[in-house]
Amino acid sequence: MANSDLESLRDALREFAHQRDWDKFHTPKNLAAALSVEAAELLEHFQWLTPEQSAELTSEAQAGVREELADVLLYLIRLADKLDVDLIEAAQAKLAINARKYPADKARGNARKYSEL
Amino acid sequence: MANSDLESLRDALREFAHQRDWDKFHTPKNLAAALSVEAAELLEHFQWLTPEQSAELTSEAQAGVREELADVLLYLIRLADKLDVDLIEAAQAKLAINARKYPADKARGNARKYSEL
Amino acid sequence: MANSDLESLRDALREFAHQRDWDKFHTPKNLAAALSVEAAELLEHFQWLTPEQSAELTSEAQAGVREELADVLLYLIRLADKLDVDLIEAAQAKLAINARKYPADKARGNARKYSEL
Amino acid sequence: MANSDLESLRDALREFAHQRDWDKFHTPKNLAAALSVEAAELLEHFQWLTPEQSAELTSEAQAGVREELADVLLYLIRLADKLDVDLIEAAQAKLAINARKYPADKARGNARKYSEL
Repeated sequence: MANSDLESLRDALREFAHQRDWDKFHTPKNLAAALSVEAAELLEHFQWLTPEQSAELTSEAQAGVREELADVLLYLIRLADKLDVDLIEAAQAKLAINARKYPADKARGNARKYSEL
Repeated sequence: MANSDLESLRDALREFAHQRDWDKFHTPKNLAAALSVEAAELLEHFQWLTPEQSAELTSEAQAGVREELADVLLYLIRLADKLDVDLIEAAQAKLAINARKYPADKARGNARKYSEL
Repeated sequence: MANSDLESLRDALREFAHQRDWDKFHTPKNLAAALSVEAAELLEHFQWLTPEQSAELTSEAQAGVREELADVLLYLIRLADKLDVDLIEAAQAKLAINARKYPADKARGNARKYSEL
Repeated sequence: MANSDLESLRDALREFAHQRDWDKFHTPKNLAAALSVEAAELLEHFQWLTPEQSAELTSEAQAGVREELADVLLYLIRLADKLDVDLIEAAQAKLAINARKYPADKARGNARKYSEL
């Protein structure tokens, strides 16, 4: 039976850390800090852009952004692994919570009212 | 052919935003900011913990952390969708880059030398 | 001789931590994480706003933003104190570096070229 | 009458932006994002260190950290200027709030109970 894509990445990251003896650095606290740093590096690409420019990246910016998106996903998978969290199940559960929290008819077009996806 | 888990979440997020007329808020710039904010909320759970405590969360903290991990994944999927980036392909490509950048024999046990997974 | 405002705040924060026996939590690492979390809470106020809205905050948002600006300054002072860094001198030195890095005649009106103040 | 150190830096930053025609990029939203990015660059120096290592930086790390502390202060001053917030007054007010929120006798030595300085 084939593993899912996320499980394959999780296993590759385990092996990657093991081969380099980096498990000792990968405490949940350190990984959460690293994830936050990567998310900021992603944001850095957008910080001076207008909303319109942010939707039409140059190909150079697009390549940089793609790498940062990848870094965020890799640390996210690694941290979830260390904490025994199933990311897909957690995301599905959170989406269900958000659907109740922001009923479509009341939240319609209103940015002030929400702080979640 | 069945969609993957990430594609299912992507489609659910599209529908979620469409029903609430939130696409106008979901510029890449805004989503990158929101992703960064969620990553910081995740970090907040760990900020005062010792490395050891961060590996043994209380069940209350674990539940909060699980929700923040989910939020990060949801914004990550949404942002990647807006930028037409395949997250899995991007992560696999980045992992290959990292493997060349940090050869296992040289990187062994050395935290000072690396800043990536 | 009167202390400067920043030195007074530094001393007040020392006393604050001492009275609560919080020095043990205030490692530079923890304070850097806390500072980053506060900066994200500040950003959260702006994440869905248009550039124009961000320049005309509601009085409620303005009050919230003021508190987050204060939190960032307080953690910044505390961290600089723990690291024996004089913030004013460091900022003056950095500004001089930036002036050389971004000559006014070349940097004029160009956001793509710079990533600093 | 002499300006305070923070006011001098504020004025220097105004002049710096004016000479480069950068005011158009310095919306509060953009400055809040930039501040958050700088705070993450500061955190990056500490992410893999033990608590003990974070209190004994190498001189190279110390120099890098000093520059990041400066960047955070510079963006903080610039953002507060754009929002007409007096940073010192805001910090003094917040410290008074925190003193009421975390009474010394109850907060003593307890990290779980607090999330502020």
